[in-house]
Amino acid sequence: MPGEFELIRRHFASARCAQPGDGLALGIGDDCALLALPAGEQLVVSTDTLVAGRHFPDPCDPFLLGQRALAVSVSDLAAMGAEPVAFTLAISLPEADSCWLDGFVRGLEQMARRCAIRLAGGDTTRGPLTLTLTVLGRVPSGQALTRSGARPGELLCVGGPLGLAAGALPLVLGQQQVAAHLARPLLEQYWTPMPQLDLGRQLRGRASAVLDVSDGLLADCGHLARASGVALWIDRERLPLSPGLLAVAGRAQAMDCILSGGDDYVLAFTLPETALAGLDAPGVRVIGRVTGGHGVHLLDGQGQEVTPLRRGYVHF
Amino acid sequence: MPGEFELIRRHFASARCAQPGDGLALGIGDDCALLALPAGEQLVVSTDTLVAGRHFPDPCDPFLLGQRALAVSVSDLAAMGAEPVAFTLAISLPEADSCWLDGFVRGLEQMARRCAIRLAGGDTTRGPLTLTLTVLGRVPSGQALTRSGARPGELLCVGGPLGLAAGALPLVLGQQQVAAHLARPLLEQYWTPMPQLDLGRQLRGRASAVLDVSDGLLADCGHLARASGVALWIDRERLPLSPGLLAVAGRAQAMDCILSGGDDYVLAFTLPETALAGLDAPGVRVIGRVTGGHGVHLLDGQGQEVTPLRRGYVHF
Repeated sequence: MPGEFELIRRHFASARCAQPGDGLALGIGDDCALLALPAGEQLVVSTDTLVAGRHFPDPCDPFLLGQRALAVSVSDLAAMGAEPVAFTLAISLPEADSCWLDGFVRGLEQMARRCAIRLAGGDTTRGPLTLTLTVLGRVPSGQALTRSGARPGELLCVGGPLGLAAGALPLVLGQQQVAAHLARPLLEQYWTPMPQLDLGRQLRGRASAVLDVSDGLLADCGHLARASGVALWIDRERLPLSPGLLAVAGRAQAMDCILSGGDDYVLAFTLPETALAGLDAPGVRVIGRVTGGHGVHLLDGQGQEVTPLRRGYVHF
Repeated sequence: MPGEFELIRRHFASARCAQPGDGLALGIGDDCALLALPAGEQLVVSTDTLVAGRHFPDPCDPFLLGQRALAVSVSDLAAMGAEPVAFTLAISLPEADSCWLDGFVRGLEQMARRCAIRLAGGDTTRGPLTLTLTVLGRVPSGQALTRSGARPGELLCVGGPLGLAAGALPLVLGQQQVAAHLARPLLEQYWTPMPQLDLGRQLRGRASAVLDVSDGLLADCGHLARASGVALWIDRERLPLSPGLLAVAGRAQAMDCILSGGDDYVLAFTLPETALAGLDAPGVRVIGRVTGGHGVHLLDGQGQEVTPLRRGYVHF
């Protein structure tokens, strides 16, 4: 008789995204999985842990969780300009609920298909719901995008809307209700952030420094500024403010979500102005510039430095 | 002010085994790590989770735990005939105890040095002590060792002693005391199992099927037999019985440790008799043979099939 956790393992092993093909030579079932990497490419790897009640609400829809967990991890590959190849999933579960597993695996499969990534293996243990994903990608040798190349004179850009996921939190947690047409874009950004893989690809050879905004714009720009040894100046008036976020959060809170909310999973990057031409990415906005110095500085419409509400990032 | 978990991250980032070099082009600190893989090689990947109180005693010596956690994971690379390249570590900790972290990182470093593997990244969360390691290795394309190639007429072998780690459990848990010279080899095998990387390397092109014994000899031979579509016959009299294990466990219990104890992390493999010559591995023993059919069968000294005490594997 297979045990409860052997049944869970089979659940994952039979997922569509766990079948060999496209670089996955050998999948779940042996001591290790086996992957092919084309000549002239480097391997990119990142590990993220998501804990129920800290990184996502508990309980929540397992389908949405499956999508979100994978998207959040693949976003790190986008930030390196990498192509997704495969991921492993270590999951801790309080019990084997086949209905929950069905939904979760379907969510994983959906996001795996959209990102062209395969499930290569993992491990299952009993315990409070926790997910650790390790994502593997590939990038032409020497072309990976890092945080450390920003230079004075360059522009600071973001790849898409900010603050929506943070603005969605009161809706996700059931603490607030708003009209469906306002809630939808916020909830979509929270539950189904689409890793900006195409933008990452286009930034290879163009951008000098890239990361994905996960801890909040100010905090992550701080990481980029520190790694590059430069100062970043953000024009508050250039930050995109969506009507949905404004309606849900009000102006002051909306700006706080944009600057410090976290969970955005859009790319922030620096590049010379000449490199901006030819970038085929409608969501990209220039939000500031790079100078010598250090730290992240916020400017109002008159070019005066202002102090944000907060800089840190607090999980709920 | 860096937070408690930022301090933990720095602890790992400054570990000797986390410094770039030897295939690790970019380590901890960016969105992803970056690895080089020589042309003509495939990537091998495996993920394992270890939970305190289930997969190791809690509390325990953090130095020994660091060694053991990495060894257990690297053993999966040995079973594929792979060379270790890098690993990621997702660690959940109830608190940031710098003394504990010092010991744990030193243990990781020691085993990383012995296995020539580097720490490429990871994640830190607060919670009950849990470790998820993803190990990455490389193997010449097409030469990875799997579980599925065993053929009738071949020999069944193991790469080293069995049952010692299971025999050590009562000592590890403080439930039994024996003379130090008897306890030492058992405790060493429990806390510092050395992944059989050299044996795995030698088995490339020689062995038809390989895995590492982690769930117990009978259970893992069952996996190999099922994957290969063969039957395995184990001669009980050929199983190595160490004096230490005999003294600690008594004859019946010692045999149970050998057959079903688990946590051995030695390789079990099948190969044609002609391939045995030239294998430079003093610990290897022939313990049985492969025939058509299915299942794992245990034979006594008279060649009669006998029933083992148990087949399963139960974590403490």
